[in-house]
Amino acid sequence: MLEKTMRVNALYDFYQTLLTPKQQRYMDLYYIDDYSLGEIAETFDVSRQAVYDNLRRTEEMLETFEHNLELYGKYTERMQLIEDMKKLLKSRPEDYLEQLSDHIDRLEQFD
Amino acid sequence: MLEKTMRVNALYDFYQTLLTPKQQRYMDLYYIDDYSLGEIAETFDVSRQAVYDNLRRTEEMLETFEHNLELYGKYTERMQLIEDMKKLLKSRPEDYLEQLSDHIDRLEQFD
Repeated sequence: MLEKTMRVNALYDFYQTLLTPKQQRYMDLYYIDDYSLGEIAETFDVSRQAVYDNLRRTEEMLETFEHNLELYGKYTERMQLIEDMKKLLKSRPEDYLEQLSDHIDRLEQFD
Repeated sequence: MLEKTMRVNALYDFYQTLLTPKQQRYMDLYYIDDYSLGEIAETFDVSRQAVYDNLRRTEEMLETFEHNLELYGKYTERMQLIEDMKKLLKSRPEDYLEQLSDHIDRLEQFD
């Protein structure tokens, strides 16, 4: 999958509930069910350009939500910390309790 | 502070970036700077009822955002897990490594 498509998919996961039902339908068909623009246009009896404009506007909205709320960015950072903690618990280097404590403190900073 | 006011404040912390500048100004004055409805009305040269309606509509929007995204609810749950982990690291009961591992797994479930 292209990097841009992966990002749109991830943002859609986080923010789909903030979109209108129509936006969600187009996004589901295009990004999840892999319909082409032409197929979506035919399904809803609208122009291909209308579908394209709707999807582009939705993608811009998703980026605006991420700019404002950073749910995807914060999620990615938290998961990195959690993965590190699992490794620490497994390998237990000499200072692992200090490192765990430090990671917990960092997790606490996320709102 | 009343429980309802505390909840509105918490939700406002999470979702203020999704509100309009005007909504944010009214909310800041009412909930943070402790202006009365009458004082806000005077400041913006609008009726007291208009300010009241705006604030009520904003509070409804905040609850809708929370219903859809659950940022405050998830934050509260994560903070409880993190607090428990800190206690575990401090008191270190016999099975604390297992418990820590379990807490880490639970933290990993949050999107």
